[in-house]
Amino acid sequence: MTEHLKQLRERLAQLEDLRNAAGVLGWDQNTMMPPRGAPARAESLATLERISHDMFVSGETEGLLDAAAADLDGVAPDSDEARLVHVTRRRFEKARRVPSDLAAEIARAASIGQEAWVQARADSDFGVFAPYLKHNLELARRYVDCFDDFDCAYDALLDDFEPGMKTREVERLFSELRGELVPLIGSVLEHRDAVDASSLHGSFGVDRQRLLVDEVVRLMGFDHSGWRLDDTVHPFATGLGSGDVRITTRWDETYLPSGLYSAMHECGHGLYEAGVADSLQRTPLGNVDSLSLHESQSRMWENMVGRGRPFCGVLAPRIGRLFDGAAGEPDAEALYRAVNRVEPSFIRVEADEATYGLHIVLRFELEQDLIEQRLSVDELPEAWNMRMKQYLGLDVGDDALGVLQDVHWSAMLIGYFPTYALGNLIAGQLWERVHLDVPDLDAAIGRGELAPLREWLREQVHRHGSKFSAPELLERVVGDPIAVAPFVRYLKAKLSDVYRIEL
Amino acid sequence: MTEHLKQLRERLAQLEDLRNAAGVLGWDQNTMMPPRGAPARAESLATLERISHDMFVSGETEGLLDAAAADLDGVAPDSDEARLVHVTRRRFEKARRVPSDLAAEIARAASIGQEAWVQARADSDFGVFAPYLKHNLELARRYVDCFDDFDCAYDALLDDFEPGMKTREVERLFSELRGELVPLIGSVLEHRDAVDASSLHGSFGVDRQRLLVDEVVRLMGFDHSGWRLDDTVHPFATGLGSGDVRITTRWDETYLPSGLYSAMHECGHGLYEAGVADSLQRTPLGNVDSLSLHESQSRMWENMVGRGRPFCGVLAPRIGRLFDGAAGEPDAEALYRAVNRVEPSFIRVEADEATYGLHIVLRFELEQDLIEQRLSVDELPEAWNMRMKQYLGLDVGDDALGVLQDVHWSAMLIGYFPTYALGNLIAGQLWERVHLDVPDLDAAIGRGELAPLREWLREQVHRHGSKFSAPELLERVVGDPIAVAPFVRYLKAKLSDVYRIEL
Repeated sequence: MTEHLKQLRERLAQLEDLRNAAGVLGWDQNTMMPPRGAPARAESLATLERISHDMFVSGETEGLLDAAAADLDGVAPDSDEARLVHVTRRRFEKARRVPSDLAAEIARAASIGQEAWVQARADSDFGVFAPYLKHNLELARRYVDCFDDFDCAYDALLDDFEPGMKTREVERLFSELRGELVPLIGSVLEHRDAVDASSLHGSFGVDRQRLLVDEVVRLMGFDHSGWRLDDTVHPFATGLGSGDVRITTRWDETYLPSGLYSAMHECGHGLYEAGVADSLQRTPLGNVDSLSLHESQSRMWENMVGRGRPFCGVLAPRIGRLFDGAAGEPDAEALYRAVNRVEPSFIRVEADEATYGLHIVLRFELEQDLIEQRLSVDELPEAWNMRMKQYLGLDVGDDALGVLQDVHWSAMLIGYFPTYALGNLIAGQLWERVHLDVPDLDAAIGRGELAPLREWLREQVHRHGSKFSAPELLERVVGDPIAVAPFVRYLKAKLSDVYRIEL
Repeated sequence: MTEHLKQLRERLAQLEDLRNAAGVLGWDQNTMMPPRGAPARAESLATLERISHDMFVSGETEGLLDAAAADLDGVAPDSDEARLVHVTRRRFEKARRVPSDLAAEIARAASIGQEAWVQARADSDFGVFAPYLKHNLELARRYVDCFDDFDCAYDALLDDFEPGMKTREVERLFSELRGELVPLIGSVLEHRDAVDASSLHGSFGVDRQRLLVDEVVRLMGFDHSGWRLDDTVHPFATGLGSGDVRITTRWDETYLPSGLYSAMHECGHGLYEAGVADSLQRTPLGNVDSLSLHESQSRMWENMVGRGRPFCGVLAPRIGRLFDGAAGEPDAEALYRAVNRVEPSFIRVEADEATYGLHIVLRFELEQDLIEQRLSVDELPEAWNMRMKQYLGLDVGDDALGVLQDVHWSAMLIGYFPTYALGNLIAGQLWERVHLDVPDLDAAIGRGELAPLREWLREQVHRHGSKFSAPELLERVVGDPIAVAPFVRYLKAKLSDVYRIEL
């Protein structure tokens, strides 16, 4: 490594240290912090962001970037060094357009907004949250105004969560996806009585759910020497540097899948964080900036593994042992069918895989309307409820089950939602590929052996960190761009199986 | 407030934000972090310290300090503004002598050292810890070398924990204290069989201890909207900005006082943090830099309140209810006598009030020997054990009960220990004063009403933050410098009472 590259790495390493520090503060806010700590926490996060931002967009960073780039002659374009310069340059060019005051204000607003959202959601009172959302949208628009090279406002936001992705492209993919999902859902719902999910509802003590989840995430790769699992309002995962992965879940004493699949989802994220190569730690390549790739992992573990027939064979006896008497011991087949029941429902994170996409489309459309000021915050609950009626046929009676259900808008994560559905698509592509590469994968999963899948994902995806964009990585692994067909094939096969119908 | 003062305050506020961030990271490391997170955590703490230090000692801070000082004409010297400039100037003049690299390395070593210490203590293996302690002492000596205006090396360290305090003065006070304690202990031990503490040993389930401690700290002023209580290896308290106070304790299932009095001790610290005036928040005056004052609060709540006869009347029925059957229901008088039993013992934090001071003298002497290189790290366990024999007549068979018991040296808190004994002295002075100001204080405490004491302390001590040094504050409140006599009067009165002897 040249001296310039070393100096660049050292500077960027300090920025990663600050990012990890902010990560601890954010994790703590959402799991541990007493409520009255919120104002001081927002100031700490704002100051960390201001200092990081100043340090990143400084002339010194630019000089080191230029010098390091000049040293890359003859260095393989896929090497850590070349990608470090490339990825950092892209982030730098975006960040330098944003004033530090605005960056700090966004961090402060995200911290304050989450506290307001927790309160508003607990009371199901959108009015409490509305002023914070207005402020957040105003900041998002000021952020968008920093750029003149995006086709539309939403592009500038989306790009933060899925680098290089365009609103137009998301629309194209979502239009194709919706075109597949709507008739598929219609067909399945004609047979809604064929699948009984009543065993999932009942009385499931949280202490016993914890035992189940602890066992499941350990099978996935969680270990207490380098991970934590805690309770929170809106589950999330965060990597705080090498050797420290934190996942969270929430518990519903009356509905078993809630805590279990949230934990598997977040553990899927955690495996990505834990699987990044050591050589990329304390560099910007160590944190994954394609959230579609990130969500492909969480959604794969949650749904393709967790709701797959082989793993239901692992879950069923454990559930039987723990909740014997509460809901009867489910046989694996009944469990498999129950957890894949398609039914329009209010809460995105608990939606079945078929209707899930429509929850995302709804949010993607509303976010664009809000950012483009075609929709005001005050009109938002009504617009939400109308679309829920239109897409899923449901009447939302309670904002906690509607517009207040997700943390994202409170936390300045506007433009994030599409990555969930894109993640499903990528997961579909990777799921086909891994079955070609590891032919006995399902049998292994059925024995509770998840290492073969995890190791394949680590080798193909995790270890690269953010060296490659989602399209670049997909090109390497499956040879295709993001596509809808594999996910739809997967879903049709599963639902044909679950409902015993032709799809 | 003048424009210069505002600008100074804004800059210092950002430094407080970073201090709070580091506080969260430190708290998390000692309560939550998975072990493999340690290396990344040390880097984050080092980088935060480097950036804070650079920002603090910069020409910009100095310019603002000079300009703000020039604006103080006519401002009352005891005003927040004047004290802010005064206290900041003192800290600035010390910090500017320390290179940022050294400051960062000290923060890194403190973080790494604590992890090594936890391991060494768990295994009772001093050899595991020795290299870290050598490195820490080397850093402490490099730190001392930054200064040329202290009479001796130890002065430079002590001054960080008790601003302005001199080793010579501590020696004088400790010599007087020891001269009182040694014969006092001797007299009491002649009657050692007069007091039976066996009821404190037994089987005390941690869940029930938690209920007891939760009730006690709530009586003291703990509330869940702005505080947390967690488990740790070495109890500590930390204020993370207004509205967020974290205290910790540890539990011994076989010895009831351990968890209870640790929690009361740390809650005493927490009340200080929580009681600082709002106007001082997010300024350097908001964190207390006299640890003798800080320890005066923790030791007062732990011992003068918690081990006082009136509060034993509050504790006894609660202990009886919770542990009925385990150790029999103690009557208040028996509990009061048991928790004040004088008996030389290995662990400082569990020592009675009479022998406690000798634990501190021992550490104070060893720290000086280490810093002055009259004693090597390899010789330290032997030196520790010899002094324990000499001062307390005990044979230390196990380093976990000896030289490895305290976290301080691992955490770069070298020079901290004297403040515990100084805190006892100050507590003695304040305890006499509050009884003059609040004549029915004991009766209130006996009814479980701790607000009168807490409010007096808030008014006289807590609200000032670090506006005043310990001598300045004592002058205001009791009209005297730090003195030995009031603490000795308090202790003799209590032990006469407990042992029913003349002292």
